[in-house]
Amino acid sequence: MDFTEFLYGGDYNPEQWLGEPEILEKDIEMMKKAHVNTVTLGVFSWSFLEPEEGRYEFDWLEKIVNRLYENGISTILATPSGARPHWLADKYPEVLRVNEKREKMIFGGRHNHCFTSPVYREKTAAIDAALAGRFDANPAVRLWHVSNEYGGDCHCPRCQEAFRAFLKEKYGTIDALNKAWNSAFWSHIYDSFDQVESPSSLGEESIMGLVLDWKRFVTYETRDFMRNEIRALRDAGAVKPCTINMMQHFKDLDYRKFAADLDIISWDNYPSWLETTPADEGFRAGMQHDMMRSMKKAPFLMMESTPSMTNWQDVSRIMKPGMLFMQSFQAVAHGSESVFYFQWRASLGGDEKFHGAVVDHTGSDQTRVFREASEVGSGLEEIKELAGTQVVSRTAVIYDMENEWAIAASRGPRNQGMHYEETVLKSYKALRSMGLNVDVLDEDASLDGYKLVSAPMLYMLKEGFADKIRAFVQNGGIFISTYHTGLADENDKCFAGTVPNGLTDVFGIERTEIDALNDWEENKVSSLTSDLPGRYTCTELCELVRTCGAEVLAVYGSDFYKGMPVLTRNRFGKGWAYYLAANVDDEFYYDLFDKITRTVGGIRKIKLPAGLSVMTRTGADADYLIFQNFTGEETYLPVDYNKLDVVYGGASPLTPYGAMVLRVPFSRPKKGGFPNLS
Amino acid sequence: MDFTEFLYGGDYNPEQWLGEPEILEKDIEMMKKAHVNTVTLGVFSWSFLEPEEGRYEFDWLEKIVNRLYENGISTILATPSGARPHWLADKYPEVLRVNEKREKMIFGGRHNHCFTSPVYREKTAAIDAALAGRFDANPAVRLWHVSNEYGGDCHCPRCQEAFRAFLKEKYGTIDALNKAWNSAFWSHIYDSFDQVESPSSLGEESIMGLVLDWKRFVTYETRDFMRNEIRALRDAGAVKPCTINMMQHFKDLDYRKFAADLDIISWDNYPSWLETTPADEGFRAGMQHDMMRSMKKAPFLMMESTPSMTNWQDVSRIMKPGMLFMQSFQAVAHGSESVFYFQWRASLGGDEKFHGAVVDHTGSDQTRVFREASEVGSGLEEIKELAGTQVVSRTAVIYDMENEWAIAASRGPRNQGMHYEETVLKSYKALRSMGLNVDVLDEDASLDGYKLVSAPMLYMLKEGFADKIRAFVQNGGIFISTYHTGLADENDKCFAGTVPNGLTDVFGIERTEIDALNDWEENKVSSLTSDLPGRYTCTELCELVRTCGAEVLAVYGSDFYKGMPVLTRNRFGKGWAYYLAANVDDEFYYDLFDKITRTVGGIRKIKLPAGLSVMTRTGADADYLIFQNFTGEETYLPVDYNKLDVVYGGASPLTPYGAMVLRVPFSRPKKGGFPNLS
Amino acid sequence: MDFTEFLYGGDYNPEQWLGEPEILEKDIEMMKKAHVNTVTLGVFSWSFLEPEEGRYEFDWLEKIVNRLYENGISTILATPSGARPHWLADKYPEVLRVNEKREKMIFGGRHNHCFTSPVYREKTAAIDAALAGRFDANPAVRLWHVSNEYGGDCHCPRCQEAFRAFLKEKYGTIDALNKAWNSAFWSHIYDSFDQVESPSSLGEESIMGLVLDWKRFVTYETRDFMRNEIRALRDAGAVKPCTINMMQHFKDLDYRKFAADLDIISWDNYPSWLETTPADEGFRAGMQHDMMRSMKKAPFLMMESTPSMTNWQDVSRIMKPGMLFMQSFQAVAHGSESVFYFQWRASLGGDEKFHGAVVDHTGSDQTRVFREASEVGSGLEEIKELAGTQVVSRTAVIYDMENEWAIAASRGPRNQGMHYEETVLKSYKALRSMGLNVDVLDEDASLDGYKLVSAPMLYMLKEGFADKIRAFVQNGGIFISTYHTGLADENDKCFAGTVPNGLTDVFGIERTEIDALNDWEENKVSSLTSDLPGRYTCTELCELVRTCGAEVLAVYGSDFYKGMPVLTRNRFGKGWAYYLAANVDDEFYYDLFDKITRTVGGIRKIKLPAGLSVMTRTGADADYLIFQNFTGEETYLPVDYNKLDVVYGGASPLTPYGAMVLRVPFSRPKKGGFPNLS
Repeated sequence: MDFTEFLYGGDYNPEQWLGEPEILEKDIEMMKKAHVNTVTLGVFSWSFLEPEEGRYEFDWLEKIVNRLYENGISTILATPSGARPHWLADKYPEVLRVNEKREKMIFGGRHNHCFTSPVYREKTAAIDAALAGRFDANPAVRLWHVSNEYGGDCHCPRCQEAFRAFLKEKYGTIDALNKAWNSAFWSHIYDSFDQVESPSSLGEESIMGLVLDWKRFVTYETRDFMRNEIRALRDAGAVKPCTINMMQHFKDLDYRKFAADLDIISWDNYPSWLETTPADEGFRAGMQHDMMRSMKKAPFLMMESTPSMTNWQDVSRIMKPGMLFMQSFQAVAHGSESVFYFQWRASLGGDEKFHGAVVDHTGSDQTRVFREASEVGSGLEEIKELAGTQVVSRTAVIYDMENEWAIAASRGPRNQGMHYEETVLKSYKALRSMGLNVDVLDEDASLDGYKLVSAPMLYMLKEGFADKIRAFVQNGGIFISTYHTGLADENDKCFAGTVPNGLTDVFGIERTEIDALNDWEENKVSSLTSDLPGRYTCTELCELVRTCGAEVLAVYGSDFYKGMPVLTRNRFGKGWAYYLAANVDDEFYYDLFDKITRTVGGIRKIKLPAGLSVMTRTGADADYLIFQNFTGEETYLPVDYNKLDVVYGGASPLTPYGAMVLRVPFSRPKKGGFPNLS
Repeated sequence: MDFTEFLYGGDYNPEQWLGEPEILEKDIEMMKKAHVNTVTLGVFSWSFLEPEEGRYEFDWLEKIVNRLYENGISTILATPSGARPHWLADKYPEVLRVNEKREKMIFGGRHNHCFTSPVYREKTAAIDAALAGRFDANPAVRLWHVSNEYGGDCHCPRCQEAFRAFLKEKYGTIDALNKAWNSAFWSHIYDSFDQVESPSSLGEESIMGLVLDWKRFVTYETRDFMRNEIRALRDAGAVKPCTINMMQHFKDLDYRKFAADLDIISWDNYPSWLETTPADEGFRAGMQHDMMRSMKKAPFLMMESTPSMTNWQDVSRIMKPGMLFMQSFQAVAHGSESVFYFQWRASLGGDEKFHGAVVDHTGSDQTRVFREASEVGSGLEEIKELAGTQVVSRTAVIYDMENEWAIAASRGPRNQGMHYEETVLKSYKALRSMGLNVDVLDEDASLDGYKLVSAPMLYMLKEGFADKIRAFVQNGGIFISTYHTGLADENDKCFAGTVPNGLTDVFGIERTEIDALNDWEENKVSSLTSDLPGRYTCTELCELVRTCGAEVLAVYGSDFYKGMPVLTRNRFGKGWAYYLAANVDDEFYYDLFDKITRTVGGIRKIKLPAGLSVMTRTGADADYLIFQNFTGEETYLPVDYNKLDVVYGGASPLTPYGAMVLRVPFSRPKKGGFPNLS
Repeated sequence: MDFTEFLYGGDYNPEQWLGEPEILEKDIEMMKKAHVNTVTLGVFSWSFLEPEEGRYEFDWLEKIVNRLYENGISTILATPSGARPHWLADKYPEVLRVNEKREKMIFGGRHNHCFTSPVYREKTAAIDAALAGRFDANPAVRLWHVSNEYGGDCHCPRCQEAFRAFLKEKYGTIDALNKAWNSAFWSHIYDSFDQVESPSSLGEESIMGLVLDWKRFVTYETRDFMRNEIRALRDAGAVKPCTINMMQHFKDLDYRKFAADLDIISWDNYPSWLETTPADEGFRAGMQHDMMRSMKKAPFLMMESTPSMTNWQDVSRIMKPGMLFMQSFQAVAHGSESVFYFQWRASLGGDEKFHGAVVDHTGSDQTRVFREASEVGSGLEEIKELAGTQVVSRTAVIYDMENEWAIAASRGPRNQGMHYEETVLKSYKALRSMGLNVDVLDEDASLDGYKLVSAPMLYMLKEGFADKIRAFVQNGGIFISTYHTGLADENDKCFAGTVPNGLTDVFGIERTEIDALNDWEENKVSSLTSDLPGRYTCTELCELVRTCGAEVLAVYGSDFYKGMPVLTRNRFGKGWAYYLAANVDDEFYYDLFDKITRTVGGIRKIKLPAGLSVMTRTGADADYLIFQNFTGEETYLPVDYNKLDVVYGGASPLTPYGAMVLRVPFSRPKKGGFPNLS
């Protein structure tokens, strides 16, 4: 998709007010006031679009689409498969899921249909095709929003059959499956594929290969269901781009497997800004943004966010003044081409009636939320020239979903919490604290073009990835690994031999044991180099490694492994391979990455005060630096912006949660390969 | 019922000792020693009363009833439906419940029959009628105790049908239901009543209207079952009064809906005296007593209490010496005409064998419990003249069960705990700390006759109640509301427009937003008036309101809403309407109510030391002040009792957990409309 | 079994590497290096031994058994019933369990077959017989290891029938059952045995007699299943001894009921050495060892232990250097004739792939674990002369499994935790801290030969045991009881009369009430004797007793029972009966037992520094004192070892986690009935 402006708007569910046409007119008036240019329609409209089997009623929708468009507001049109009508479940019970305890679900909720059901595929394809036929050519429609937040699994007999077929396709013979799953352990040998049942708390949960393949199957089958919907749209002649809205921190699906089928990535962003601090949460949200962008290495859409608060968290804090702006500009800074809300107008009843909305139950435009949302809309217009620009990263972290699954499925060494994602976040935070753009990749990604890659806890080393690491370092890259790396293959079968498997020469170390600490325990880290001058601690996981070539930069300060390596560095080819044997604290990561990046060419670091963030978007002839203040205090910009083009903002210190956008033309004098900001 | 003495005794289950007739004689001897005049029989006797279908064996019971009566001990006779015989469940499995996961229950436990089952209704009616025929005319029998602690729900197909009929009756058309439930959200439109299923974790839980109506149906159907039992008694000629024993802090049924069918209210009182402090728990128990009394604005019965300890709490602390007296006299102080225990004699086996009893497993009358119970019995005889007197309140708090359900069912703003009942308790404590009698009402109640009403968190504003508030204030009443008031109608559909709905002119404020704090957070409250001189805090919920006429008396001390109102006051008609925007601490409530009540005519305040309670019962020609010491320390009476008639006690300071009862004749000189106590 | 050396080795599952014969050769080489002389084979081999119904394939196993034996390594051969093959469950679904919610299990996991199923009994008997026929005569086979870690229950219709038959056999008539279970309470009278259903969260859980008898039935039926396996072996001509491997702290089975059928006891020992301190955990593990030894009062086998870490605990800490030695020698010190590991070689996949193994995934003999395991093997050879010696105790504690069940099943006085096992441990620790051997008995045991017996919380006083206590004290024994003793009979029916039932004259006290404290509360204990000089506290449970003859040695320091007895002593016959009314702290126990044992003849106390343990094993002509250091600090031996024969070790202080073994010939001069160590 090409973007010449930022899309601004959100989910709109006018079918709730069909009997009150004045609401639509009021909404249009308010949307214009708030600078809205796009809304999403139809997400949960099936009951209205097909009130009884085969009878489509699209007129009401078309009227709304057109009326909006007349007022300059485009539509993203959803397919309605996220929640089926009652009659469909009544007539075809097969569309309802069976849970892992083999209990048949009753109608209710949403996002809970059997992905395998031929009937559900047929019925969704039919209405999708009808919608495509009626709406795709409408100039108001920008994009197809396929279904809503795909997720969950179904254990019905049809899904069991599909799972067996999936396994047969993957393994060919049952012997191959037995070997891959090491089912000889506990005498769990399968005699045939017919014996395979999905994991269940009433049955098998002790075969990790089964657990992993089930998760892969669920991703496969969900994607197949999505393809069925997209195919229906295309076969009916639709030419507009397609997306699905993904979820934050969602671990049931391997989203990256969906990317190739989509024209653009979009996702739903719900940070808990006030659970810790906005600055901390900003890193977490930022890493999600970057993961979404990295899937296609292209701009994406923030399809949902709340304009004020959620209603599903334990405690729904409202955002302080300015935080909505901060949240919205952060999306853009990381590569989003949109700021969308769930939701435009709050429903008066139902599960989410207390979820934030631009227009609350009073219907007033005099609310703080409406005012702040209007300011966001106007801000997006001010930075319009950034639309369509790219985010280019020379550093990356690896966060691999199948590795996440494998770590979670395995028992030991720390069932109380391995904290894989949190550990990746430590590297991410350190890099971003230096002002660097960071990509978030998985093991399927290419490492070409990166200067530095950090890949913590790469427990599952999939075929080929060790070679990529080897080549990357050989050719001059800097690679950082940690404890719990290179233990198992893609079916969670451990490698026989030294660990990290196939990489001991690259890192110059060998793992021997791993100690898991209780939550109340820690170890000290003693630095052997003035580059790491702090007093550091480590917690949770302490690996014992012996060196075979690497230089030791830091060691344990206590326990029987006092003096054994915590950090090593190894020269391999033209590059460097670092190995962190323990779960060290944020300070250690920060000091380490600060030191490492000093030696790296081709990346630019900025010394940022705490809570200040910078992202760089790159256009046709200029870089744009988006500085954001994630604190409630005024914060000074670390560069002299007076010498630069100010696209947005223009006063230092930045106001709480405020931003400044600078334009740095490619033509500007360079220093060390980069435009000289000072 | 007329009471000329207090009923004293408790549950007695002699069917456990039918083979040991000497036990009965021993019990009678001990009952007399303990001043017992009434026992409850038959609560769990069905297996003995109808050992096989249709064969009634009542002789053993009649013998016991008569033998007790010969010794001056009356009987409250229970219908046996609380626990059915084994043969009944075997022959008619329909009497067993189906749970919300649609699992059929197996025989066991108690209080778990299907309330809809025609068979269960028929069988209970038959035995009830037989009991009535045999026992109602017996002068020994004072009262019918219908079933036992009704509760729970059943999701069997019969109950589903009854639920659908209930909805059809309520809504008429399915469109009306869809509108009321806002089922358009998430496309959950019902096409017909046949599609409705009760809420289930396997199905629908996201429609609040469904959740609320299911709870209403369960109340309706349980009451209908109760009516079926009462009708059976009456049709068989019974003329004695009927009651059911309600439970403390029980939120599954809306008990007030049962009141009209009952001749007298009774309930089971099990405070946790030593979980916090007896003084604190005294307020909680007191509010329950007052809620029970307020249902019919008439004296009630405390049908159960423990003479020593329970066995179902996490930790069963025993009462300290004097606390049994305190608990028993508290009941009387709040309007009870009885002190009854569960149980007279401890069972030797079964679920409750370690529950406290007047006669423990040793069978001795030399135990501390027996001695203290005897003293209670003798104390009740000393204050006999209070029997039949009334409790008259000029202040009230609103605690509405449907509002409780609605707050619990809705998601947001604080799923971690909205604490409705606890919030009502704050008002209650403040009023009672000033020596005021307090009624506990719901939204169906009339506000006539009250001087001051506090109604915290009246989230669900049912039709008509806003008008009652308006009229109450208009006519000179003082009304206190808080945050989270007036948001939704009786089906939990939010009002479109300003909040509190229909009352913004009464309070002179409008709600704009609500912030939910994490458990570890608080805000400060800054007072703008010398009437509130303390340093106060608020927690959990902070509403942001703007005034439209009200005077601001206190404001937030921090966060971005620093300076916005926490407490406002508005003159409306002849009265005052206060609005508390945040969940302030006890001290704030105390100071606020202390100030407010200074301006109110027609109520009498007493300056009470901490832990001292006073309740007033009113007889034909005198008031009775019951002072009670809820602390383990000696506490001085704040009035000069030497000038008054002492009915019980007579020395100040009061002993730990002790009491004094004073008689104030109407003829006594008055001061400010009240008898002059000083 | 006769032992002339300690068995050393562990579980070996070579069926996982059948395709890689070089692994076996490598293992043999490494086993020899590690001094291994015995391995356990076949635990989970059924799929390999009978790949399809009736087709046995034993050749691969025989080859391994023989190859090992050629290299000096014997085999313990398991029957394979711990995990069934897939085909067996497919063809005969009855072998799969039904859980307490009556849900049918799906194939998966292990240890989860229906013990009643005739088919499972037939199939296991058949393969057991075939194994016996093929392997019993093989000189390589030392022992039959029947199944693996029996446990769990099944609620299928067959098991219900078997349960009813069990009850009919026990009670004869349904009236007798009703009386024993006091089912008159709550009207739960059974009309016939056909009505009995096993306890279920969907049905009956409120009848303690039912709950207890179900647990007894599960023990009975599991034992019956085990007998079926043993019978199959014997009928096929097997003459080698049989064992089953029991589990630590396992409360689902009453293991002592299995002892008579076994030739030797064995168990699986998995201490959490680093959750608190090794010294503390050492007492817990020691008590388990002693309980196992006491079942047959004979040496036993430690059938499993981990050489490094587990993978199923919340946090898997690795053992510090020396701790493997400590764990292994502790087993021997308490009477084990073996040190076995789960497992020799780590599996590459499956549930336990991260469980510790002597040979880890690297396959190397250069690991710390392998080195330490070799040192253990060599250490066991050094102390070979201790093999076959006995552990003789003159003191005992009672820990009765049925009493454990009864305390857990009853509601009140402290549902939050009665802590029976932990309370027994307090006595155990005090006695062991004085260097005394301690037996761990249940109520079925004889008390003959003991000088001192401590029996805390003997809530369930089974028929005959009161008489044993009476005779024991009468004849000069010292008996210590605590609160919550002697309340109920074996069906959890409370005794009518004074408590402790039948023993008030022995103890000279009567219980009156029991108070349960909240977790944050405590009471003080005031000593009335200089023998108890400390400042003590008590928590959780405080009983109120009145004396009828006993001397009071300590009293409560606060609450209304201040001054009432905490500790009493009563002279009865030639002995002394102590009664502890409250859950006092460890210091109190230590000081009390220190004082008590001063007056006891025939036992030897040693003054031990904290963390040092001593156990005595007795051979044909000498005692062996095994001193062990359970701390990470050097610790001095409290005896002059230079005058004694040193069997192992020989330097004081002991190294961290180290040991010294001394030989004290019977011929050595005695002092006070014992060899003079000084």
